[in-house]
Amino acid sequence: MSERNLHLVTGAAGFIGSHLVDRLLTAGHRVFGVDNFVRGNKENLRAARQHTGFAFLELDISDTAAFVAALNEVGGMIDVIWHLAANSDISAGGADAAIDLRDTFMTTYSVAQVCREYGVRKLAFSSTSAVYGDHGSIAVHEDIGPLFPISNYGAMKLASEACLTALSEAALDNLWLFRFPNVIGGRATHGVIYDFLDKLEKTPHELRVLGNGTQCKPYLYVDDLLDAILLIVERARDRINCFNIGPEDEGVLVRDIAEIVVDKACRNARILYGSEDRGWIGDIPRFRYAVDKIQALGWTPVCTSSREAVEKAVDAQVSERSGKSA
Amino acid sequence: MSERNLHLVTGAAGFIGSHLVDRLLTAGHRVFGVDNFVRGNKENLRAARQHTGFAFLELDISDTAAFVAALNEVGGMIDVIWHLAANSDISAGGADAAIDLRDTFMTTYSVAQVCREYGVRKLAFSSTSAVYGDHGSIAVHEDIGPLFPISNYGAMKLASEACLTALSEAALDNLWLFRFPNVIGGRATHGVIYDFLDKLEKTPHELRVLGNGTQCKPYLYVDDLLDAILLIVERARDRINCFNIGPEDEGVLVRDIAEIVVDKACRNARILYGSEDRGWIGDIPRFRYAVDKIQALGWTPVCTSSREAVEKAVDAQVSERSGKSA
Repeated sequence: MSERNLHLVTGAAGFIGSHLVDRLLTAGHRVFGVDNFVRGNKENLRAARQHTGFAFLELDISDTAAFVAALNEVGGMIDVIWHLAANSDISAGGADAAIDLRDTFMTTYSVAQVCREYGVRKLAFSSTSAVYGDHGSIAVHEDIGPLFPISNYGAMKLASEACLTALSEAALDNLWLFRFPNVIGGRATHGVIYDFLDKLEKTPHELRVLGNGTQCKPYLYVDDLLDAILLIVERARDRINCFNIGPEDEGVLVRDIAEIVVDKACRNARILYGSEDRGWIGDIPRFRYAVDKIQALGWTPVCTSSREAVEKAVDAQVSERSGKSA
Repeated sequence: MSERNLHLVTGAAGFIGSHLVDRLLTAGHRVFGVDNFVRGNKENLRAARQHTGFAFLELDISDTAAFVAALNEVGGMIDVIWHLAANSDISAGGADAAIDLRDTFMTTYSVAQVCREYGVRKLAFSSTSAVYGDHGSIAVHEDIGPLFPISNYGAMKLASEACLTALSEAALDNLWLFRFPNVIGGRATHGVIYDFLDKLEKTPHELRVLGNGTQCKPYLYVDDLLDAILLIVERARDRINCFNIGPEDEGVLVRDIAEIVVDKACRNARILYGSEDRGWIGDIPRFRYAVDKIQALGWTPVCTSSREAVEKAVDAQVSERSGKSA
C-alpha cells in the first residue's frame, strides 16, 4: 500500500485502535478515526491529534444510516477500513446480550454497508479466538470446526466474520480476519490486569479473584499484535485471509497474573480465590492456540512468553495510573 | 417428549413450518404458531386451523420486544421452540442485506431472548448447508472448517447458529441445529421449481434459466426432511446437536430440473440457458454433503434420489396450481 492512503479506523480511541492509529500515522498514512467513547478514551488519541494526517469523528457506528451519512459529508476515498470497534467486556455481554448485538455485530453490519455504499475494497477485522468455542486440549488452528462459540462476545464476532465473508464474495478485494488472543498493554480499557488494578485501588489490602486461579490463557503484548496485523495486511493478499495471532506458549495462570500484579502494584495485598474453574459463563478455562500460519508469514513476537507480556503490561498500566494520580 | 406438550413454531405458515405444524398436531402436541405472512401463506394453515390444539398469532418476530410481550399475554409454558422463520429467498438477500439481517438473524436473536425470558430450555433451529461456504469438491461434514459463507443468507444463518450456541451455554438443555439442503415439495413459497413454474405461467412458450444449467445440487423432499428433524429431536440429546440433512446422492442438474418441469407443466416450452456457471452471486455451482451422522441415527429418506424428489415436488406444485386456477 502506498503512503498517504486513507485508512478508516473504527474504535480509534480504544485500547488497540489507538495504538493502530499511531502506527498508521507514523507509517505516513492519513487516518480517519471514529469512536463513540463508550469504552474508548480521549486521552488515547492525544498523540494522534497532534498529527496533520489525522481526522476524527465522534459517532456510534451501530447506527448504520448515521455512519453512512457521516462519511458522505466527509467525502474522499477510503482505501482500507480497520474495523476494531466492539464490546470488549465479555462478562458484561453475558449479562446483557444486547451489548454484543449492538456494539460488536451491528457495528460490523454498518461497516459492511459502508463498504457497499462507498466501494471500499479492503477491510481488516479484529475477530477473536472466542469464535472457536471450547475445543478442550486441542490446539485450535484456523480451519478447525465446528464453531460453537459459548459467549455472546464470541458469537457476535463469528456473526461478524460471516457477515464480512459474504460481503467479500460480492464486494471486496481483500478481507483480513485477525483472530486475536488476549491482548494486553498500556491504554487497556478492560481485561484481567485492568480489573485487578481497579480492585486494588478500591481495596488495597486484598485482591479477590473470580475463579480458582487455575485458568491458563495465552497473552500477547499489544506492540507484538500490531506488528502481526500490519504484516498480515502487507503480505497476505488472498480474498479472505484468516490468521490466529498469539504467543508461542500455552499461556500463564490467572494465579500468576494475580501475583505479578500484587508484586508490582500493592505488595501487601492478600490474594483470595473463588472455587470455580471458570471466571464466568462463557469463560474457557484452558485454551490452546495454533499460530503456525502467522509464524510462516515471518512473524515472531518480541515478548517471548505470555508471562513476559503480562509483566510488561502491568508495568505500563501501573505507570499510567501513577501518572494520572500524580 | 410426552404428548400435549406446547410447541412454539416460528414461520408456522411457511413451506416447511406449516408441514411441521401438521405433523406436531397429528402427534398429539399443542402447537402455537407465529408468522408475519411476508412469505408464509394463510392457505398453508387450513388443516391446522381445524385443530383444537392449534393457536396462532400474526406477528413480525424480528421486533424482539413485541415478541417477548406477545408471549406474556398468551401465557403458559412453552416446552420446545422450533425456529423456522427466515428469509428463504437467497438472491433477494444478496440484493439487499437488510432482508437477511431482519428476517433471518434478528428473528433468531428474538427467539434467544424469549428463551431467556420464559425459561424455554429446548430449541430446534433450521440452519442450512450455506453456512459452509464453498468447499469445492469436498463432501462437507458437520465439523468441517473454515466456515466462510458466501451469501448473506448463509452468513445470517451462521450468525444465528452462533447466537444460539452461546445461548445454550447459559440457558438451554438441548439445542438442535438442522443444516437443511434444498428442500422441495408442496406449499413451497420459493425455490427453483417454484420459480420455473411461475415463469412458465407468464411465458408458456419459453423457460429462461439463470446460469448455464450445469449447477448440480442435492434436493430433499419435505416429508423426508420432517422425518429427519423429528427423529433428531427424539434421539439426539446432547446440549448441542448439529446435523446435516440431505439425500444420499450428489444431486441433480438444474438442466434436468428444467426438463422435468417443462415435461410435467408445459410440454411445448423451449428452454433457454444463460452462460454463467452460477445462477447469482452467492450461488454455489456444485455442492457435496456428508450425511453419515443423520444416517447413523437411523434415518433414510423415502425418496431415494434428488431426481425422484424433484419429480414428486413438481407433481405436488403443478397439482396445487391447477387447484388454485380451477
